[in-house]
Amino acid sequence: MAQNGRLQGLGMLVLSVLLHPVMTTAQQPALNLMPLPASAQPVTGSLAVDSSFSVAFAGHNEPRLERAGERFLRQLARQTGLPLSFKPAKTAKATLVVQTDHASKEVQELGEDESYVLEVTAAGAKLTAPTPLGTMHGLQTFLQLVDVSPSGFAAPALKIQDQPRFPWRGLMIDSARHFIPLEVIRRNIDGMEAVKMNVFHWHLSENQGFRVESRRFPKLHELGSDSLYYTQDEIRDLIAYARDRGIRVVPEFDMPGHSTAWFAGHPELASGKGPYEIERRWGIFDPAMDPTNEKVYKFLDELIGEMARIFPDHYFHIGGDEVNGKEWDANPKIQAFMKTHGIKNNEALQAYFSGRVQKLVTRHGKAVVGWDEVLVEGVPKDIVIQSWRGQASLAQAAKKGYRGILSNGYYLDLGWSAARHYAVDPMSGDAANLSAEEKQRILGGESCMWAEYVNPENVDSRVWPRNAAIAERLWSPQEVRDPASMYARLDFVSARLEWLGLAHRTALRHMLQRLAGSASPVEFAALRTLTEVVEPVKDYTREQTAPAEPSSNTPMNRVVDAVPLESDAGRRFGELVDQFLASACHDPAGEARLRSQLTLWRDNDAVLQPLAQRSFLVKEVAASSQDLSALGTAGLAALDVIAKGQPALDSWKAQQLAIIDQLKKPKAQLLLIPAPAVQRLIEAAAAGGACSTSKP
Amino acid sequence: MAQNGRLQGLGMLVLSVLLHPVMTTAQQPALNLMPLPASAQPVTGSLAVDSSFSVAFAGHNEPRLERAGERFLRQLARQTGLPLSFKPAKTAKATLVVQTDHASKEVQELGEDESYVLEVTAAGAKLTAPTPLGTMHGLQTFLQLVDVSPSGFAAPALKIQDQPRFPWRGLMIDSARHFIPLEVIRRNIDGMEAVKMNVFHWHLSENQGFRVESRRFPKLHELGSDSLYYTQDEIRDLIAYARDRGIRVVPEFDMPGHSTAWFAGHPELASGKGPYEIERRWGIFDPAMDPTNEKVYKFLDELIGEMARIFPDHYFHIGGDEVNGKEWDANPKIQAFMKTHGIKNNEALQAYFSGRVQKLVTRHGKAVVGWDEVLVEGVPKDIVIQSWRGQASLAQAAKKGYRGILSNGYYLDLGWSAARHYAVDPMSGDAANLSAEEKQRILGGESCMWAEYVNPENVDSRVWPRNAAIAERLWSPQEVRDPASMYARLDFVSARLEWLGLAHRTALRHMLQRLAGSASPVEFAALRTLTEVVEPVKDYTREQTAPAEPSSNTPMNRVVDAVPLESDAGRRFGELVDQFLASACHDPAGEARLRSQLTLWRDNDAVLQPLAQRSFLVKEVAASSQDLSALGTAGLAALDVIAKGQPALDSWKAQQLAIIDQLKKPKAQLLLIPAPAVQRLIEAAAAGGACSTSKP
Repeated sequence: MAQNGRLQGLGMLVLSVLLHPVMTTAQQPALNLMPLPASAQPVTGSLAVDSSFSVAFAGHNEPRLERAGERFLRQLARQTGLPLSFKPAKTAKATLVVQTDHASKEVQELGEDESYVLEVTAAGAKLTAPTPLGTMHGLQTFLQLVDVSPSGFAAPALKIQDQPRFPWRGLMIDSARHFIPLEVIRRNIDGMEAVKMNVFHWHLSENQGFRVESRRFPKLHELGSDSLYYTQDEIRDLIAYARDRGIRVVPEFDMPGHSTAWFAGHPELASGKGPYEIERRWGIFDPAMDPTNEKVYKFLDELIGEMARIFPDHYFHIGGDEVNGKEWDANPKIQAFMKTHGIKNNEALQAYFSGRVQKLVTRHGKAVVGWDEVLVEGVPKDIVIQSWRGQASLAQAAKKGYRGILSNGYYLDLGWSAARHYAVDPMSGDAANLSAEEKQRILGGESCMWAEYVNPENVDSRVWPRNAAIAERLWSPQEVRDPASMYARLDFVSARLEWLGLAHRTALRHMLQRLAGSASPVEFAALRTLTEVVEPVKDYTREQTAPAEPSSNTPMNRVVDAVPLESDAGRRFGELVDQFLASACHDPAGEARLRSQLTLWRDNDAVLQPLAQRSFLVKEVAASSQDLSALGTAGLAALDVIAKGQPALDSWKAQQLAIIDQLKKPKAQLLLIPAPAVQRLIEAAAAGGACSTSKP
Repeated sequence: MAQNGRLQGLGMLVLSVLLHPVMTTAQQPALNLMPLPASAQPVTGSLAVDSSFSVAFAGHNEPRLERAGERFLRQLARQTGLPLSFKPAKTAKATLVVQTDHASKEVQELGEDESYVLEVTAAGAKLTAPTPLGTMHGLQTFLQLVDVSPSGFAAPALKIQDQPRFPWRGLMIDSARHFIPLEVIRRNIDGMEAVKMNVFHWHLSENQGFRVESRRFPKLHELGSDSLYYTQDEIRDLIAYARDRGIRVVPEFDMPGHSTAWFAGHPELASGKGPYEIERRWGIFDPAMDPTNEKVYKFLDELIGEMARIFPDHYFHIGGDEVNGKEWDANPKIQAFMKTHGIKNNEALQAYFSGRVQKLVTRHGKAVVGWDEVLVEGVPKDIVIQSWRGQASLAQAAKKGYRGILSNGYYLDLGWSAARHYAVDPMSGDAANLSAEEKQRILGGESCMWAEYVNPENVDSRVWPRNAAIAERLWSPQEVRDPASMYARLDFVSARLEWLGLAHRTALRHMLQRLAGSASPVEFAALRTLTEVVEPVKDYTREQTAPAEPSSNTPMNRVVDAVPLESDAGRRFGELVDQFLASACHDPAGEARLRSQLTLWRDNDAVLQPLAQRSFLVKEVAASSQDLSALGTAGLAALDVIAKGQPALDSWKAQQLAIIDQLKKPKAQLLLIPAPAVQRLIEAAAAGGACSTSKP
């Protein structure tokens, strides 16, 4: 798939650094595009974008393209501050002429043509695409190209030929554990459009909530949602909103586990005696549907039928994950059924359930998506496996003829860095060894935003900007994988995303203001200095180290809720340290920058402590603040030793590393991110001044 | 009016610093309330605000109070991060019990009772008010009281008795020169509610636009608004939205001048020959209605009748300002009319027009509000004069029996500091010498947001936070006038206002990101350092020094559009300098802080210049950046001289002051705010080390 174009693209990007004035500015990335296109070929010059900018649509047209044109112009006006006319022009003399060949499918399908060609010259721009899907992607590329220049706003002259690497590029948002209002969903869909993702997977039911209005079974949302649910009209609007942006909406109704909220209104579906109420805690719980009860299938048949009419997408997600089987074990009727039908264990019982539900979904004209567990003997080949287990599981499925998407490695709630997600490739590991035909069965991937520690206020910051790196992994050629380039572009895209209404930066600042109360400006600056270099603990540590049992009623107003999952300042400090150690240890500019940063950290605690005495929320991070101070002191000591050019005593090294070990321990569920970089300074100091050779 | 309560309140505020633990923290203002209440009496202890917080309404109730209760709870949840129930409780055991005595008027009237009493104890809170207007003010006070504390969120225990000093406390927004969408108007009304303003004066027609749908004369909005107008339904919604917040809406239709946009659709109203089109430029223009044409009065009768039915408020603003008379002079028919009727000059002709229009307004059941010009011989006593001329004009009117409100001194577009607005008192100057009865005629004041250089993106930042200081001037006792206390509370309120959706901080940061394009984090920090200490030129200098003729089509994406009208960092630097000079010149901590700041400024330009080479919008402030660098150098030199303790040579002083003179000159329509403070350092240096006695 586009192997030549891809390599050409990479070559041309390198070339562009040499040729193009806009792109040659020192340390600026060649093109601020994310995802990077399959191929980009620079041309001399640039296209001025001023108040006279206009766009015209030729070829196939439809109301969706008109709306896309107006949205494009509004966004261009917002990002430039130019007073543009928001109506697409009628003339072929427009600055940007868009040619769309033909309509795409009325209900967007997996694997439709999303390609486009964008040519920008000093005289104008032309965007051509077979379908509106490609057109919309090309418009987003153009928006990313426009930037401030020495002579006004401009887009660099170039030719881009682009298409996605994978046809399924999704974001899942769990709006069941914490309800996420539609306006927040909408702005996240705007973000998906900007980075060319095309599947919004909506996790709509959970132990903690059933979030969709059911007219057939109204007790589902009436008793299962605390009145926090989407009406069917709202859902139809959201689906239209997503379609307008080239995005499919795949609903998920998780069963037979993860379904306590269903049982609040319909205990007869469960395997236990009940009574049931909406679960408030997090975790894996016992309640599960009764796979031996024919009434359950009748109920699901009607419910799936109702939901299949609301959600037009061909795919219908039935979850299927994490059943602990305790209710099944405890129910004599179920045990008897298993014996009668030769069902050996709970896994086989779940397989039986999955098979039955899959047939219901098929009956309503849909194909099943499910987590790894739904791949059981005999299910038809049109299902799609969403793998939380990983590439090996996907590869195994592909060999059996099943298609799959990767989510293992893309769980946004685990707090991984963008670079770590970025390094995860659906085609790596066992998948790399598949035949070409088998590889075709790996459709792409989905990032997953599980919502135990996510609410409407901070969800944007948990999805963005890291999700843009995953979007690039799923769109751009496999060879596009330099994390430094990714981070440079991610910084740029992150700022742009706030223009769409995403609040991943703004909301966190507001949350810090809440923590800080009536802090003085100097105190607030100290709080920012600390919070810029800590991250929440990773993976499932937050749950495991929770001070009290967390639940959906737990306030999310702590520092751990208000800091980004990835610390930019921490990453940049690490880069500075590595540059300093890799080049020449006494590089005075590098040393000065490190000293300045470390001194700031050392002295920060004295400013912050008075605020910690006034705010219980700041008090919680007082120990982290002391740690940052100690880290500054340790780093400065290491620089002093390095400056002397003599190896330090072993006892000094041991003492300093013992300090770092203490500072690496999470406090208030926060990690002090620059600690490993300071450790590298200490190790270099201990090895003596010859540090320029001590690093590769 | 509440003289005793006021003095008691002030005394108690001082007392509170001594007694109350929350309030005794060094350098924190006693109570973060703005406006300060007429009386506040602290009690030991505080009321914990946690997830169980509830509010109940007793006494008179109405749907508006239910909505106010839910809005209050949502806002409390937002500012604390606590998961509160948003439904008012039914029980008298609620944390906050609200008692409202009786309804206020269906259409809110000037001078209704807005008082309330709020008692907070460790056990609970009680809010009592004669009318819902007072209740809503009291709820806002409670929201301001809740802050983070050492043990959780809490409100200090106290008793507040509060009522406004003036019954008319307004904000005017000009949404005619630049159209301001309803969502932006709404969030500004939320801000008004937070600071207890009660009149939204909506400037709806201008040379540049007629912004209201007229069904009687649809050409007014169809040809006079570029399709940017409010429908009648939208206006009714907005009026209901304002009423829900205790705010009256007074519409203004400016006539006979400032009306070119009317003539685009209705040239027959004008005094000239036309043709007319919507004015794009700023300034005072010739077109004016023809006061001698009976058809004009027939038209206005019908239009005022239509608008009077949409806007329920008793007051109707007819503008009346700034007619240059050129069209009248040039029209022989008008000249003949004047001769026939013994109208001596254009002023008298306008008086004739005002008198006629006033009768039309009265006929439709309303009373006229107009600028100073409408006060002409014989107009009835129920009109209200809005004075752009000042207290003398108001006092003169009051002596004649006319009521008035002050706007001179409250023009937000002139870029004055909050302290300068704050020092303007409607009862000062000639007004101070009025009799008690005459003083009653001074109803209050209105801040005015004229919109030549204001659009939906930056309007919040032009209104807020400074408008909160004017709101305090109009609500709080006259003796409340310490600018230091005001600024401390303003900082706090400013952050809180962003929780309401106001974007006065956020939007400016986004605008800087637009200017900066793909700046590195270090470059962006340098841009922030510069932009934090510049302010747009004051008064009407921007118009007078515009590089090209500005118009409604001019992009507003420059630094001058993106910096606050008042520089907090500049003000704080001035305070630091004054503290340093007033205490002891060699106060090492003070000197170190000044040196650190000045060094940062001196070195900032080197970081910023590469960005200026890449962005034309940053390039515009490259000279200001060099000036800031020079200012840093000059300040450091002055500190060096002061450190020596010897007076500097006169030649040095002259040379340094000449530099400062250069730095004080506006560049790119920006002022370098710390320049006068550095000048004080230089003067102190020149006077020798004995600076601790050189300042009062």
